[in-house]
Amino acid sequence: MSFSPLLGQLIQQLRALPGVGPKSAQRMAFHLLARDRAAGKAIAQALQQAMEHIHHCQLCRTFSETPLCVLCANQKRDHQLLCIVESPADMLAVEQTGYRGLYFLLLGHLSPLDGIGPEDLGLDLLTRRFREATIQEVIIATNPTVEGEATAHYLLQLAKQFNISCSRIAHGVPFGDVLEYIDARTLALAIAGRS
Amino acid sequence: MSFSPLLGQLIQQLRALPGVGPKSAQRMAFHLLARDRAAGKAIAQALQQAMEHIHHCQLCRTFSETPLCVLCANQKRDHQLLCIVESPADMLAVEQTGYRGLYFLLLGHLSPLDGIGPEDLGLDLLTRRFREATIQEVIIATNPTVEGEATAHYLLQLAKQFNISCSRIAHGVPFGDVLEYIDARTLALAIAGRS
Repeated sequence: MSFSPLLGQLIQQLRALPGVGPKSAQRMAFHLLARDRAAGKAIAQALQQAMEHIHHCQLCRTFSETPLCVLCANQKRDHQLLCIVESPADMLAVEQTGYRGLYFLLLGHLSPLDGIGPEDLGLDLLTRRFREATIQEVIIATNPTVEGEATAHYLLQLAKQFNISCSRIAHGVPFGDVLEYIDARTLALAIAGRS
Repeated sequence: MSFSPLLGQLIQQLRALPGVGPKSAQRMAFHLLARDRAAGKAIAQALQQAMEHIHHCQLCRTFSETPLCVLCANQKRDHQLLCIVESPADMLAVEQTGYRGLYFLLLGHLSPLDGIGPEDLGLDLLTRRFREATIQEVIIATNPTVEGEATAHYLLQLAKQFNISCSRIAHGVPFGDVLEYIDARTLALAIAGRS
């Protein structure tokens, strides 16, 4: 059976959300229409405004509707310390550890097969920040994947050119985990990086 | 850390979608902002239009932006046969079986504890349709839950008053399932309803 055109369109569009398939999209549309039209309108408005007004922070590339994000504009943070992460979600994760420096977001990782090179990761912007010489130390917190490691290696070389002290977050056994169930690669890294 | 106001608002609003928690809402917002702003705007527009223009079909109560939905307006359907379901999703499920009659949507089930009585299920509208005497047969396809059964019983009584032939969909062992794993209640119903 076919839905009414507007309903069919709504379900179709909702499928653009990550993790939402045809059944979930239907469920979302029915729920909003039957129970919470005010919420539906509120989502529409928030989406519209966000898509139009949210850009990237000029310094760290995180999402912000102001030229500088809250963190970069905060003079109480340590402006000599820079943590390089792949995504806003990663930035959030690092922020929860109590880190007090600034960030730089790659919004991706080097992936030549997908056509993602240094210029797509905003590394020209990063080079400019390195050149300004405010930054004394860099922590590379890309994901421990093949692409993340390759990106980390590239960043390490870049920081070296500017004589900036540079470190990579440690790989090892997660806190609270048991050795028995850790994969060999992680355990090998944990042993190699023992302190 | 706090997000920028617009981003925080977007994540907050997305949580009104069913099955979307804080992490999923974040992921959705980041995905749309980073990769697909056009889709974000399209969702916003589809939502806005749907929430404003989609109402209920005057005959069957399904979602429709026209006074009569496509099914009720279709003269090729059997207008003497009526299937009563709880939700648009249920209607869709019945439609996939090749059913060719019309529908009536309760958009809920009788639930006195939640304050949902006959008037909330549009039963005045249903009574009017029964009175018009076009309908010859009613199939009650409410869910096999306690509330669904109570609702089915109520509808049965209602149809009886108008001398309309009325049946309830069968309960039993799902096709392709094995008896070993069927709960006792379902199996008892399957035995009682043997044919």
